[in-house]
Amino acid sequence: MGVMKDNGVVYKGVDDVDLGPNSNEFYLRANVKAPRMAGFVVKVFAWLLESPIFGGILLYFLKKNNLIHKVAERFIAYVRDSSSPEQQMSFFINYNVEDILKQASESTLRYERGEPISVLDGVPIAIKDEIDCLPYPTTGGTKWMHKVRKCTSDACCVTRLRLCGAIIVGKTNMHELGAGISGINPHYGAARNPYNRSKITGGSSSGSAAVVAAGLCPVALGVDGGGSVRLPAALCGVVGFKPTFARVPHEGVLPINYTVGMVGILAATVEDALIAYAAIAGGHPSDQSSNIVPNVGLPLLKSANYMSAEIKIARYGKWFDDCTDDIKACCSNAVAKLSDKYGWKTVEVTIPEIEAMRLSHYLTIGSECSNSISSYLEKLNREEIGWDVRVGLAVYGSFHSHEYLNAQKIRQRQLKFHEKVFSLADVIVTPTVGVTAYTIQDDALKTGELDYINGAALVRYQIAGNFLGFPAVTIPVGYDESGLPIGLQFIGKPWSESLLIYIASAMQALCISGYKKPEVFYDMLAKE
Amino acid sequence: MGVMKDNGVVYKGVDDVDLGPNSNEFYLRANVKAPRMAGFVVKVFAWLLESPIFGGILLYFLKKNNLIHKVAERFIAYVRDSSSPEQQMSFFINYNVEDILKQASESTLRYERGEPISVLDGVPIAIKDEIDCLPYPTTGGTKWMHKVRKCTSDACCVTRLRLCGAIIVGKTNMHELGAGISGINPHYGAARNPYNRSKITGGSSSGSAAVVAAGLCPVALGVDGGGSVRLPAALCGVVGFKPTFARVPHEGVLPINYTVGMVGILAATVEDALIAYAAIAGGHPSDQSSNIVPNVGLPLLKSANYMSAEIKIARYGKWFDDCTDDIKACCSNAVAKLSDKYGWKTVEVTIPEIEAMRLSHYLTIGSECSNSISSYLEKLNREEIGWDVRVGLAVYGSFHSHEYLNAQKIRQRQLKFHEKVFSLADVIVTPTVGVTAYTIQDDALKTGELDYINGAALVRYQIAGNFLGFPAVTIPVGYDESGLPIGLQFIGKPWSESLLIYIASAMQALCISGYKKPEVFYDMLAKE
Repeated sequence: MGVMKDNGVVYKGVDDVDLGPNSNEFYLRANVKAPRMAGFVVKVFAWLLESPIFGGILLYFLKKNNLIHKVAERFIAYVRDSSSPEQQMSFFINYNVEDILKQASESTLRYERGEPISVLDGVPIAIKDEIDCLPYPTTGGTKWMHKVRKCTSDACCVTRLRLCGAIIVGKTNMHELGAGISGINPHYGAARNPYNRSKITGGSSSGSAAVVAAGLCPVALGVDGGGSVRLPAALCGVVGFKPTFARVPHEGVLPINYTVGMVGILAATVEDALIAYAAIAGGHPSDQSSNIVPNVGLPLLKSANYMSAEIKIARYGKWFDDCTDDIKACCSNAVAKLSDKYGWKTVEVTIPEIEAMRLSHYLTIGSECSNSISSYLEKLNREEIGWDVRVGLAVYGSFHSHEYLNAQKIRQRQLKFHEKVFSLADVIVTPTVGVTAYTIQDDALKTGELDYINGAALVRYQIAGNFLGFPAVTIPVGYDESGLPIGLQFIGKPWSESLLIYIASAMQALCISGYKKPEVFYDMLAKE
Repeated sequence: MGVMKDNGVVYKGVDDVDLGPNSNEFYLRANVKAPRMAGFVVKVFAWLLESPIFGGILLYFLKKNNLIHKVAERFIAYVRDSSSPEQQMSFFINYNVEDILKQASESTLRYERGEPISVLDGVPIAIKDEIDCLPYPTTGGTKWMHKVRKCTSDACCVTRLRLCGAIIVGKTNMHELGAGISGINPHYGAARNPYNRSKITGGSSSGSAAVVAAGLCPVALGVDGGGSVRLPAALCGVVGFKPTFARVPHEGVLPINYTVGMVGILAATVEDALIAYAAIAGGHPSDQSSNIVPNVGLPLLKSANYMSAEIKIARYGKWFDDCTDDIKACCSNAVAKLSDKYGWKTVEVTIPEIEAMRLSHYLTIGSECSNSISSYLEKLNREEIGWDVRVGLAVYGSFHSHEYLNAQKIRQRQLKFHEKVFSLADVIVTPTVGVTAYTIQDDALKTGELDYINGAALVRYQIAGNFLGFPAVTIPVGYDESGLPIGLQFIGKPWSESLLIYIASAMQALCISGYKKPEVFYDMLAKE
């Protein structure tokens, strides 16, 4: 019928909405045009290996000389240091010294025999405490979840990492139930930002972002239901990668947000994210044909297909600019570089109803969370839940079914809008978040925090990745005037991970020389 | 994980529930076993044509002698009679004398030329006022829907009937918004049961069932979202047929219950239902290849495939028997006849969680209704809505999204349960309703009625047809001690309409000689 109505808002038919640059949808037309230049291809890996700062997977692999066990010992010492009363970084909810050293010994033996399993062999990887991973309970950042739901086996993604020889070093801190994005957890402490201890990490995969930024692990796993991987990655200055919905099996992840949530990767570099992705991606674990076969070969970028292509990047100017001045300038500059160095073209588009999409996603993720844990909540003493999450759960539980159904209609509309946008360009570019990491205030440490203004600014660019299931990646592209990291996000079509990683890698190559070391940083590969 | 929990109820894993006859699920094991005998095939059509009572489509077609225009004139006179202060049958919300006579003249001309389009040419067919049909507004049984939503073209199913030459004679009465099953409408009057004017017709397709029972039309269209075709068909002693979900395009039907609702057919005989079904079934109207090509041939039962087959009929004894003694005896007797005459086998099964399915369906249909009309309700004066529906809408609007999501999980479970049952049998047999038509009380005429006990008994056997989308058919098999009709229902696998109609036709053949004429009956084909 071409027209959809809800709560007095009249929506145009999808076909009637102008998605072109001259649309009169809510945001005004953008006049920013990126410059165009003839381009050339960059030697990404070389540049990366020349980078002085980060201890990426490749460096681990190049330093085969019996370093593994030493790294494990350093890891344990550094985590203890980070948890000290002076640091209070609250990176981990659980780690087991004996288990770490045992894995390290096994990996060391493989290297001594000259038989490492893959480039991930001996690499420390941390797991968000929303993902099942033995020998640890899965708390979901709560004090009760693990009591009513036992962890009895590894999640599929964890199994796959182990098959590649990775050392699973523990369970990272997270926003309680993933139901918030500050990363302030009243039970296990507020994860602190390695670039500035007084600032938030963002969440909900707060600890996973922080341990990568602090150098403790080149890779950590998170879960991204509403930006929960990309958002803390951006605030902590690391790479955050959320594959297409269902690209990584969800088995063994708390089913808190089952149509929007996805395992994602936090990594020191795009290449590290790619390697971890190659290890965990693939069909359902019961489908043997799609299981990962670990090997020592380096999973290379499928870049040959793209080398000669002119990438087209969609940009919705008014949306892109809806952030702080520092972020706007930094991200615009990064996009301009892509055009400048590679000749990639920026296509100005309009993506309508972005705020309606954010609210519809909020309604959806809240309903799914409420539905998932309703059976537990009845028996639970509410005092076991943090105050901010109690407020959240009360709101989630009040959502009505007719509103939920309307949210799913909005979802269908947005899929159609984005299909049109992706017929015009290969990826969509946005800043990853609208603000940089803000200050942890003392009164938030015990109660958590409800900050809807900063919250909206943090998730503003995240939603298509979750509500529509698209793959998306964030990479650090600079810093604000107080030295806090700024991330740039690329959103791809479904199943376009390979192209997305290529683009992110090309972007990283143009920024990596400007990367800065965090305030809290542990050099795992340092010489004695 | 094998176990599903909600609101303190612990559900077993689907695979752990025993669906066999010895299951210990809620209902106790049934000991009733249908007798088995060697069978033979019946000459269905012959028996049907010998039946003295009903003016089915075939009789219309056999009497080609310029009767069409006379029938139309009779129809108009009879409808006026039925609406008189003495009768107050309230069959129609709208009919247009000029429009009816115009169609009749056109059909008469086709017959005079010897070129009728199909067996439906000149056959009067009535349309539930939930389906778009020019030149009428679509009220949905309300006083306001047609003011805010204009009817601008025929629904797909109506277009297809017209292509076959049918005369569309008007818009039948219905329960307001389809949000009830008594058929008592405070705005357009309570449709009355032709078998007993003091009784309900059932709903929501109340008028469509009544006009067929009263002989005014051999076929009428209804919409079945929660038994709304089969239920009034059973109470009024006619055939009610709900095809598989999406078998008939939903275009042009009020989108009140979009995942459970379906156009269905009310007809004097199974064969009439089959002919109307052949006219309206098929793919999306934009798919030209699946459009109906009208022809004068008689769409025959695809019975050849089944003639020699031994049909297996699943029966869940405790559920089957959860009805009045008259219904239980009559329906059991009918099933026994199938075994007796044709040698068909009855397989005793257990279908678990039927009450959970009913409640989950109620939550789903209510949520969809609420979502569909929420934009209208805001601007509406509540006094324009009947009291019973106001209560219903308030309840629907209070459903929570987490409950809705849980209902969808129950839906998935039931699909799996039924898949198993259909691996054991060809169809499921039940009484159509748990009670026969009850009395319309005076106080209900203005306010409508909330009768949850009779309501539950009326929809007890309907839900799988809607919530799971299965095709289902009801046929009259007898009368209770006060002479009110009793229906028997067969529920089929998805897309098994052809088998279902064959079975229903065979059942009808065994009952038709006992059919009784209603108290209010108009003989459209009588000689002068």
